[in-house]
Amino acid sequence: MLSTMQDVPLTVTRILAHGTTVHGKAEVITWTGEGEPHRQTFRETGLRAAQLANALHDELGVRGDARVATLMWNNSVHLEAYLAIPAMGAVLHTLNLRLPAEQLAWIIQHAADRVVLVNGSLLPLLAPLLPQLPTLEHIVVAGPGDRSVLAGSTAQVHDYEELLAGRPETYDWPETDERQAAALCYTSGTTGDPKGVVYSHRSLYLHSMHVNTAEAFALTGRDIALPVVPMFHVNAWGLPHAAFMAGTSLLMPDRFLQPGPLAEMIEAVRPTIGAAVPTIWQGLLAELDTRKEAGAIEGASSLATVIIGGSACPPTLMKAFEDRHGIRVVHAWGMTETSPLGSVAHPPAGVTGDEEWRYRCTQGRFPASVEARLAGPGGEYLPWDGESAGELEVRGPWIAGAYYGGADGEHFRPEDKFSPDGWLRTGDVGTITPDGYLTLTDRAKDVIKSGGEWISSVELENHLMAHPDVAEAAVVAVPDDKWGERPLATVVLKEGATTGYEELKAFLAGRIARWQVPERWAVIPAVPKTSVGKFDKKVLRKQYADGGLDVTRLG
Amino acid sequence: MLSTMQDVPLTVTRILAHGTTVHGKAEVITWTGEGEPHRQTFRETGLRAAQLANALHDELGVRGDARVATLMWNNSVHLEAYLAIPAMGAVLHTLNLRLPAEQLAWIIQHAADRVVLVNGSLLPLLAPLLPQLPTLEHIVVAGPGDRSVLAGSTAQVHDYEELLAGRPETYDWPETDERQAAALCYTSGTTGDPKGVVYSHRSLYLHSMHVNTAEAFALTGRDIALPVVPMFHVNAWGLPHAAFMAGTSLLMPDRFLQPGPLAEMIEAVRPTIGAAVPTIWQGLLAELDTRKEAGAIEGASSLATVIIGGSACPPTLMKAFEDRHGIRVVHAWGMTETSPLGSVAHPPAGVTGDEEWRYRCTQGRFPASVEARLAGPGGEYLPWDGESAGELEVRGPWIAGAYYGGADGEHFRPEDKFSPDGWLRTGDVGTITPDGYLTLTDRAKDVIKSGGEWISSVELENHLMAHPDVAEAAVVAVPDDKWGERPLATVVLKEGATTGYEELKAFLAGRIARWQVPERWAVIPAVPKTSVGKFDKKVLRKQYADGGLDVTRLG
Repeated sequence: MLSTMQDVPLTVTRILAHGTTVHGKAEVITWTGEGEPHRQTFRETGLRAAQLANALHDELGVRGDARVATLMWNNSVHLEAYLAIPAMGAVLHTLNLRLPAEQLAWIIQHAADRVVLVNGSLLPLLAPLLPQLPTLEHIVVAGPGDRSVLAGSTAQVHDYEELLAGRPETYDWPETDERQAAALCYTSGTTGDPKGVVYSHRSLYLHSMHVNTAEAFALTGRDIALPVVPMFHVNAWGLPHAAFMAGTSLLMPDRFLQPGPLAEMIEAVRPTIGAAVPTIWQGLLAELDTRKEAGAIEGASSLATVIIGGSACPPTLMKAFEDRHGIRVVHAWGMTETSPLGSVAHPPAGVTGDEEWRYRCTQGRFPASVEARLAGPGGEYLPWDGESAGELEVRGPWIAGAYYGGADGEHFRPEDKFSPDGWLRTGDVGTITPDGYLTLTDRAKDVIKSGGEWISSVELENHLMAHPDVAEAAVVAVPDDKWGERPLATVVLKEGATTGYEELKAFLAGRIARWQVPERWAVIPAVPKTSVGKFDKKVLRKQYADGGLDVTRLG
Repeated sequence: MLSTMQDVPLTVTRILAHGTTVHGKAEVITWTGEGEPHRQTFRETGLRAAQLANALHDELGVRGDARVATLMWNNSVHLEAYLAIPAMGAVLHTLNLRLPAEQLAWIIQHAADRVVLVNGSLLPLLAPLLPQLPTLEHIVVAGPGDRSVLAGSTAQVHDYEELLAGRPETYDWPETDERQAAALCYTSGTTGDPKGVVYSHRSLYLHSMHVNTAEAFALTGRDIALPVVPMFHVNAWGLPHAAFMAGTSLLMPDRFLQPGPLAEMIEAVRPTIGAAVPTIWQGLLAELDTRKEAGAIEGASSLATVIIGGSACPPTLMKAFEDRHGIRVVHAWGMTETSPLGSVAHPPAGVTGDEEWRYRCTQGRFPASVEARLAGPGGEYLPWDGESAGELEVRGPWIAGAYYGGADGEHFRPEDKFSPDGWLRTGDVGTITPDGYLTLTDRAKDVIKSGGEWISSVELENHLMAHPDVAEAAVVAVPDDKWGERPLATVVLKEGATTGYEELKAFLAGRIARWQVPERWAVIPAVPKTSVGKFDKKVLRKQYADGGLDVTRLG
C-alpha cells in the first residue's frame, strides 16, 4: 500500500529556498586579494540567483534543460550559478580549468553549451578555444579581467553585473522532477574521451544531506566552511549545496590558492572546516608553521577540521596538523562518479592511539547510501576480511550508473565502468575490513592478474624501494603463457650501486608471498613519468612489448 | 534530461543491510532491571531480524503489505521488528500502550492487524481486548510475563524465541518501491477517531538521514543513544532507524522508565545522547541531583546532549541540567504527522548568553526538508517577522499528506488537517523569526478569532496568572455578534482574595493591546481539568453556552 506521506521532490530549488529564508543571514565571503573580502548574505545570494535566472531566461534564451557552463573560481557569483541554473530547470556544467585546451573545447562541444559564465581572470584560457566553439552564443564575464582578448569572438559578450542589473529579484522557479538533470561534470580519464556525469536534483539533495551528517562533514549554522577544492572539481565535494542547506557560511578563496593568501584568509575570516587535496594542505602546513614561529599566529587555528581527499594523505601530514595546530585531518574518498562522497575516515567507537590512527589513515567507512562490494580477479565477490583485495564496486542514489551522451545521444554504460547489474566499477583496488573500512592499494589497471589472484604492483614497488640500493622501482603486468599475467620489475639503482637481481629477488621473497615474486627483471636508467610526475606505466608496457627493455628472467 | 545517476530506492531494507555490515559491531543494550543488561550486536540483530521475517512469512502467513502490530517497550526484540517487518515489505504497526483500551481495540481492528508481537509484561493490557479482536490470528509473546491471561483466546499464541529458533539467518529481502508503506502509527487526537499515519520507506530513510545531521541529533558511530521516548511514540522520534544508519549503539530502557533505573543504566552503560519528554527529564534531574549530593556520581555524566520534545520545556530545567550536570538540553518540535522531526532548537552563529537561551527555548529551526508557512485567521500567509501569529502549516517528504483508510478504504484528507494545496495544518499557532525560529504559543483551537485577528488564550492566561490574587485562569473563545469571537476570562481567585473584575481588566490593559482585553469575566471555583491534568476548555465552553457560568460584562 502507498504511504500517506506527501510526495515532495528533492530538488536544488528547495535548497535555494531554504538557504535564502531560514539561513538568510549566513554569508558567502569571497577573498579578493586586497582589503576587505566581499561579503554577501545567503538572502542576497538568492535575490541575485533570481536575477541571474531571469537574465538567462529572458535575455539569453535559456530554456528547458539547456546546459549553462561555468569557467570560474570559487566565489559568490559561481555560487549564484550553482543555485540558479539547476533551480530554473537548466543544467549547471562546471568546466575544469586545469584541463588541456583540446579537452576543454571537446567537452564544451559535447555538452552543446550555448552559454558560458566565465571569470574575467580566466578569459586568457577561454579566448584561444573560441575558434573551436561555433555553437557558443553567449559569454558572460564576471569580475576583473581584460575583455579585449574576446575581440573577434562570434559569441555575444556580456558583463555579469550589467546583465543582472534591474532584473526582478524573484523568479517563478518550476517544480522539477527530482530525477531530472541538475549538473554536469566530465571526468578527465587518462584513456579515451572525457565522460560526462549528470547529477540529478535527487542525487545533489541526498548528497548534501549526507555531507551534513555527523559521520561525514557535520556542517552546522555555526560553521564557516572553506572549500579550497575547486567548484569545478566534482562540485567542490558537495560543500556549496550542503552549506546552503545547513546554513553554513562559506569562505570562497577565488583564485588565491597559494599558501600565503590561504593562511591570511583563514586568520581574517576564521573558518572552522576546510577541504582540499593533500598538496594544498602540505603547502598550508609549512606556511602555518612559519607564521607560528614568527609569532604571527595567536593561539589555535579556527580550523577544527580539514577534509583531505583526491589522493591518499601521508600520516605524517595528518599528525603534524593535529600536533602543531590543533587541526583534525579527516580522510575521505570519492570520485566524479560518486558525487563525490564515497567514504569518510572517522574512527569507530572505543579505539585510541595507534589503532585510531590506523583507522583514520584508511579511505574510511561507507554511509548507508553507498553500498560496496569487492570484485576479485575472476569476477567473484570477496569477503570483507581486511585482506582479500578486489576492485571496489559501488551502488547508491548518488552514484553514476551511466555516462552522458554517447554516439547515439543516449546515456551509455561502458563494460569496464559498470557491472552487468549496474554497479559502478571504480577502477580502485583494495580491501574492506569486517567493520566496513576501505583501504585502497592500487588502480585496477595497475594490478597483475596472475593465475586468478591479484598481485599489487604498488606493494611490490614499495618493498623494492625499501632496498637501500634502489632509487625507484616500477612494476607492470606482462603477458605470461602459464599464469595469464606476471609482474615485471623495473628498477633504477642508486648511483654507484651494482646490486644483482638475485639479491633483490631474495629481498622481496622475505617480505611477500613466494608466488608474487617477479621472475622478470630489468634495470633502467629512470622510470618514465607523466606530465604531472606520476609513473607512466603505459610507456614501460610498450617498451617491454617492443623489446626495448633488457629483461633478465630468473628461476 | 534524465541524470546518469543510479536509480536506487531509499528503503529500510538498505538501513538494515548497512547497519548489520558496516556497523555490525555496534550494540543494542537492553536494560533488564537486574544484573547485566542484555547485549546484542547490530550483526546479531540483523540475523535475528531475518529469522523473524522467515517466521512471519513461513509460519504466520504474513504476505505483501500486511500490517504486523507491536505492543512493546523499547528493547532489542522491538528493534528486530522495526527492521524485519518493513524490510520484508510488510507494515510495522506500533501500538501505543498508553491509549485507553477502547481506542487500542479500535485501532487494531481498523489496521486489520492479523499478527501482534507483545512483551510478556504487557499481556494484562492485551488480554482484555481480545474479545473485541476477532480478526487477530497470532499473538507472539516476547520476554517474561504470565501467558495464562491469554487462555481462551481464539488467536494462536507463540513464544517469540521458539518461533525464531532454528530458522535461517538470511532472508531474501525484496527490493521495495520507496513510496510503499513501511510503518503505521495512529494519532491519539482528542476529537474523533484516531487517525493512521503511514510512513513510507522513503520518509523513514530521509528522516533518519536528517536525524543524523549535525543540525539535528548528530548521531555517530562513537555515540550511544538512549531513547527513553517509547518506540510506540512516533518511532521513538526516529532514533532506532537513524542509529542503525549511523552505527550508533542503542541503550534500550525496556519498561524501566522511573528516575532510579534511568540513572542506574546511564551510569552503567554511559550513553552520550538521550531523548524524552520534559516530565521524564524533570524526574531524572532530581535523581541525578540526589545521587551527586550523595557522592554516588563521579565526575560529569556521560550524557552530552538530551533531546526534549513533546511539549515546551521549562528553561529552568534546561539550565539546571547544563549547570549542575554538564548536559546540554536541546529542544525539538514535531508530531506524529511529521515523522516527527519538524524543528530543532540549535542557536544560530554568533549568539551568547541570554540571547542564546532565547533561541534555545524556541521550538527551533526547520531543516530544508520541512517547508513552513503561517496561515493567519483569514487564511492569508503571514510574514516571518517574529510577531505575526498564525497556524503553522508544513510540507515535505516526511510530512503526512493524508490519513490511512477512510470510510471507503482510501486515504483521506480532512479539511481541518490539510490545506487545499496539500500542506499539513499542524493545529499549532505561533510565530517565526526572520531567521526561521519557530515559537509556538497556542493550539489553533485555543485561539480567539476576533475581527480577523487572533488573540492568544495562553498569553492572556499567563498574564492573568501573574496577578498576585489569581490562582488559576482559563480563557476561551465565545461567540460575539460584532467580532465573530471574543475572549471570556474565567478566573480562580486565591483563598480570601476579593479582587474585582475592573482591577483585573486594568492589570491586563497595561500588558496587552487594548483590543485584546476581554469584556466577559467570570470567577469560578476551579478550572475543569482533563484526566491528564490539562485545562478542559470544552467543558468551559459548554458551561458558557448552557448559561452555567455567572458572567459579568464590562465596558
